[in-house]
Amino acid sequence: MTQDTFSFQLLAAEGKARAGIFHTPHGPIPTPIFAPVGTQATVKAVTPAQLEALDASLVLANTYHLYLRPGADLVAELGGLHQFMAWPKPILTDSGGFQVFSLTGLRKIDDDGVTFKSYLDGSIHRFSPEISIAIQEKLGADIIMAFDECANPSDYAYNVKSMERTHRWLERSIAAKKRDDQALFGIVQGGIFEDLRKASAEFVSSFDLPGYAIGGLSVGESKADMNAMLDFVPAILPDNKPRYLMGVGSPEDLINGILRGIDIFDCVLPTRLARHGAAMTFSGRMNMNNAIYTSDPRPIAERCNCYTCRTFSRAYIRHLILSKEMLAATLLSIHNLSTLEELVKQSRKAIIDGTFTQFAENFLKKYKIVS
Amino acid sequence: MTQDTFSFQLLAAEGKARAGIFHTPHGPIPTPIFAPVGTQATVKAVTPAQLEALDASLVLANTYHLYLRPGADLVAELGGLHQFMAWPKPILTDSGGFQVFSLTGLRKIDDDGVTFKSYLDGSIHRFSPEISIAIQEKLGADIIMAFDECANPSDYAYNVKSMERTHRWLERSIAAKKRDDQALFGIVQGGIFEDLRKASAEFVSSFDLPGYAIGGLSVGESKADMNAMLDFVPAILPDNKPRYLMGVGSPEDLINGILRGIDIFDCVLPTRLARHGAAMTFSGRMNMNNAIYTSDPRPIAERCNCYTCRTFSRAYIRHLILSKEMLAATLLSIHNLSTLEELVKQSRKAIIDGTFTQFAENFLKKYKIVS
Repeated sequence: MTQDTFSFQLLAAEGKARAGIFHTPHGPIPTPIFAPVGTQATVKAVTPAQLEALDASLVLANTYHLYLRPGADLVAELGGLHQFMAWPKPILTDSGGFQVFSLTGLRKIDDDGVTFKSYLDGSIHRFSPEISIAIQEKLGADIIMAFDECANPSDYAYNVKSMERTHRWLERSIAAKKRDDQALFGIVQGGIFEDLRKASAEFVSSFDLPGYAIGGLSVGESKADMNAMLDFVPAILPDNKPRYLMGVGSPEDLINGILRGIDIFDCVLPTRLARHGAAMTFSGRMNMNNAIYTSDPRPIAERCNCYTCRTFSRAYIRHLILSKEMLAATLLSIHNLSTLEELVKQSRKAIIDGTFTQFAENFLKKYKIVS
Repeated sequence: MTQDTFSFQLLAAEGKARAGIFHTPHGPIPTPIFAPVGTQATVKAVTPAQLEALDASLVLANTYHLYLRPGADLVAELGGLHQFMAWPKPILTDSGGFQVFSLTGLRKIDDDGVTFKSYLDGSIHRFSPEISIAIQEKLGADIIMAFDECANPSDYAYNVKSMERTHRWLERSIAAKKRDDQALFGIVQGGIFEDLRKASAEFVSSFDLPGYAIGGLSVGESKADMNAMLDFVPAILPDNKPRYLMGVGSPEDLINGILRGIDIFDCVLPTRLARHGAAMTFSGRMNMNNAIYTSDPRPIAERCNCYTCRTFSRAYIRHLILSKEMLAATLLSIHNLSTLEELVKQSRKAIIDGTFTQFAENFLKKYKIVS
């Protein structure tokens, strides 16, 4: 692998918004991009063929879950994540840190790493930067993440300490990395504090990495706080590398992120909403359970070209939800993921055409939660 | 519609086994055929596109369920079942009788019809031959079924009474039918009693119908009892019409049925087994939960050409089951349905080639429950 393996081509910019291509061993990722989340090596309720048909490119999988089950050694033995989950295009794994901090009740953190209990059987495990990188190298994703701590975003004193630890862990993650066919991204932390975020962005970007992530946002703070951080953090990061805003995925957050210079997003929101009967559209969210759809022959979204909208009525989807049929989750997941992929695709085109500012303004004016 | 709309072309026969084509307004049904069951207007966990890809032709839907939810009027308003569930090929609806008798606790049967409580909300409803046909005409399937009673197969005295009632109901179903673009099949009953089955087959085939069904089997009697009935009933039915064995769908039962002159089968078994983690193959049943598959890189069945077997390992499918991922049910449903469609397709080819007797013998010799 050469240095160019993970090159980022910037094709166009409009204001802070960027359109580009991030190259990986499993093909190019057009940016801005939204990555569906396949926590347990499957994007819930959809097949890889359905994901390809809706033009997904990058897919995320979770190191924490896959380490606990089926285990990184097993995935490696079966040829790595791409072969295991039959996803031929790029994959990103997180470091496991976020899940250890958010999902695990009993855990003990020190400067070396974290000891935690498995949510499956209560067994005791330990993650450190070295262990996380070793696991991610076994899983074999194209993009892997430095091990970080995701702290409560509004506790200043703790964020100082946590950010320092995350920085030490970045150095150790870089040192631990052995494979040259994986791109390691560093993660900016610092909660909702401008001075900490600035210091973190400067520290993280002092390393020549193939990409940079912004973590610890969309974890309970207000949208105003999140956007305030995004107003200045991306500009500190190098222009010629992709910027990944972790765990963000509502349509309005995507547009607000792209406006501020973000290139990559991921979130469980579209598939989670789907399993709860909600549809994402360009004009807002629809609760497909609603009785107003009882005999509605229209597709979820008139202009959507996804399999669900080309094929089924709102009335049928409501019937599936009321009947507790699995197909409801599949069809809504396909639709919601298609909506986000179409949104980033249209944003990308608008940036290239120089019309994104107008596109974003129109989008945000029209967008609301409807039902 | 002309008389030929529902013509049955017999292409070949070997012993009692037959290969043919049953023509319907939504296209031809090659026989022998296995019909996946879409109880609530969806074959559980698979999309119509996936069903088409695995070469399903006829799909069954349940009048009882669809009458209760979303209601036959709503389905009619939305263009009928084909449009509602987006299945462009032939559909068959049952009469609702079987579900009333098997699913409903509180019910009162008399010679006119059945009064029963909804399993959804306890409301009181009534089915009669006239009501069942009216509902099925609203649903709009290609093949509809006469209203019948499915009795305990081993109670002789009751089966005499029940069979007589079923015969009166057939006459009334025929008289009630108004649409000429639907084929009404009569149903042979009579439990496990040769004299009753013979009388019923003679009575039902005395009407010139586009097809004939054998009901009340695979409902608790032994396989020997079922096969004993199938040894003589089909021969009583007209040669030039399709014969449908209701509710039968294990691989060995399909082969045993085809050997005895059955053309059409349906069953929830492949999709139900799939949701319980079991795979059907030509050599037996596999429990994909089994630890022996933990690191098994092979497809479920080496020679199977379905999407699941072309794409995923046994180890991955086991991981999905342990992880309670919906994709497990989807992938196993695709595989199990593909297995049965492939089995009837190979049987059909063997009948045309004159090698079916040998094919069936080899199949039944090899077939066993494995895990």
